[in-house]
Amino acid sequence: MRLAIDVMGSDQGPRAIVEGSARAVVERPELELVLFGPCQHLVAELARLPRPLAAATSRLELRDAPQSVEQDSTLAWALRNGGDTSMTAMLRCVASGEAAAGVSAGNTGALVALARREVGMLEGLSRPAISTSVPAGRGQRCYLLDLGANVDSPPVRLVDFALMGAAMAQCVDGIARPAVGLLNVGHEAMKGSACVREADRMLGERAEAFGIDYRGYVEGGEIYRGELDVVVCDGFVGNITLKASEGLTRMLVERVQATFESRLCGRLASLLVRPLLRQLKQELNPVRYNGASLLGLKRSIVKSHGSTQADGFYHAIERALREASLNLPARVDALLRERGLAAAPPRMAVR
Amino acid sequence: MRLAIDVMGSDQGPRAIVEGSARAVVERPELELVLFGPCQHLVAELARLPRPLAAATSRLELRDAPQSVEQDSTLAWALRNGGDTSMTAMLRCVASGEAAAGVSAGNTGALVALARREVGMLEGLSRPAISTSVPAGRGQRCYLLDLGANVDSPPVRLVDFALMGAAMAQCVDGIARPAVGLLNVGHEAMKGSACVREADRMLGERAEAFGIDYRGYVEGGEIYRGELDVVVCDGFVGNITLKASEGLTRMLVERVQATFESRLCGRLASLLVRPLLRQLKQELNPVRYNGASLLGLKRSIVKSHGSTQADGFYHAIERALREASLNLPARVDALLRERGLAAAPPRMAVR
Repeated sequence: MRLAIDVMGSDQGPRAIVEGSARAVVERPELELVLFGPCQHLVAELARLPRPLAAATSRLELRDAPQSVEQDSTLAWALRNGGDTSMTAMLRCVASGEAAAGVSAGNTGALVALARREVGMLEGLSRPAISTSVPAGRGQRCYLLDLGANVDSPPVRLVDFALMGAAMAQCVDGIARPAVGLLNVGHEAMKGSACVREADRMLGERAEAFGIDYRGYVEGGEIYRGELDVVVCDGFVGNITLKASEGLTRMLVERVQATFESRLCGRLASLLVRPLLRQLKQELNPVRYNGASLLGLKRSIVKSHGSTQADGFYHAIERALREASLNLPARVDALLRERGLAAAPPRMAVR
Repeated sequence: MRLAIDVMGSDQGPRAIVEGSARAVVERPELELVLFGPCQHLVAELARLPRPLAAATSRLELRDAPQSVEQDSTLAWALRNGGDTSMTAMLRCVASGEAAAGVSAGNTGALVALARREVGMLEGLSRPAISTSVPAGRGQRCYLLDLGANVDSPPVRLVDFALMGAAMAQCVDGIARPAVGLLNVGHEAMKGSACVREADRMLGERAEAFGIDYRGYVEGGEIYRGELDVVVCDGFVGNITLKASEGLTRMLVERVQATFESRLCGRLASLLVRPLLRQLKQELNPVRYNGASLLGLKRSIVKSHGSTQADGFYHAIERALREASLNLPARVDALLRERGLAAAPPRMAVR
């Protein structure tokens, strides 16, 4: 199994990416990685790897890409510079089939636009969505999308998100008829914007054909209740909701820890609860720890958090590997075709 | 001190409202409440009060209002039925100056529209915002607005929200130059919708004149970091973010409790941490426990959560009482005038 890695564009610089990549090939004997970046960076970082990881370099192939898409690069610049950038070169390696999936910790907006151009969308879908699952209820999880691939989304795109999320829940978690909710400010029919109301009407009409258990409007609190497999919203709302949840978890965990540590018998309790708190923090910080999937593309592309450390990037590679092993894009495509999405004429007209 | 109470329209029915009101007058000897609702409901609920609260009925004045605005009532219906509804009758009592502030647990959209018509906006402001504070950092708090009074908001309204939130932080918490952030999906200049970018430009230009420490774009996680006094967003995003935070807190608290209770020495820890967890749950569920303020009106109106129990409604009355004691609307008005908001000609043209 070969994956393609964009080494540039993360907030932490190329070292964290190269280290996370080296760790991945050490842990997974079947894995080969193709690393894209400016030659001198790649060689320097490889030389700096700690000894236990250095053994893995034979399964890290280096490919020179002199430019890199930075967090503040404009989309126009990224589109213009094509294969000279490590991001586009990585995507082309995936698009050609040479690598089964790709990972980048770079600029999200550029990654979405470049992936759409280089890798291409599944038939019938217009734009990728970013998704990850958050913990919900007592051990369930819920796919939340879009997390920021699109800043605003017309109704037909919200319908696409519902389908992509449902396909993810089916393929990855084996849920036959996923429960899908549309995020809104209340349950009543007249709540929300015209866009959300139109998406609700469309989803209501097509739920049966799509094989989803459409639950209508859901409020923010329901994401974590464990009764929904997929929650759909536009990328602005999803991004802010997820990041607020991460920030809140961090604050709550710190407060609980501080309470324990201020008291004698609390220190004992602290030992007990520390592993749980650490796990909760990781689960509620899914993008930072595991990356997020770009859904709707012809191949698996994973977005790692921009400020990720080597450990987080390693987990993002794991995610890409799992998606490639599941053959996720092909399975999503099959599900979409089965439901007639690609051929539905009114959708094409609207778009 | 007299406050006006809308007894109808909550999900729990009039009993919780009447009981919360009775408790408020028992605890506050200086307080009188005017209760609006259908006469037979008011009399029946008063007769049902438990004995310790029954003594307070002499300071609960009943006024007949035969209709009530339900959660699924349309705005048009609510506007048409005027003083016949308990909500409008309550607002008129406040508008006339007979009551110093008002509280309702009814339909949010109707309350916002009716309050705007009956009570009126402060000069220079076009629409109310709903706001409450959430806990942040290590004991700070952050005002978040709008929480759902407006489903989408043009740039000039986001600027209004920033001013209203800053005025709240100054008046209630005595913060001379509040730190204000604008919620977005990233810090870079090109992030977000055209609307958010325009609001950012306007806030950047006017921060000095407005006496705020404008921090530019902030991401969802920064709400809870303790470095901001006010975070501004449109009502759709704010509502979902707050409710997601409430739901997440509930889930986290349940998981921490379950971990404790499954182990022997954990039960000890549970006793230790339970008060903290209860407090966190209340703080992160601010609307349910304390209501939220409608800002920008000529008088204080508090929105209690629709599914509130007697206890929650009691806290909403406390909030209204505090705002009335602080003379909050007059102080917000004075701050806005001082900053020339009401008279700024380009703003009027935009609106």
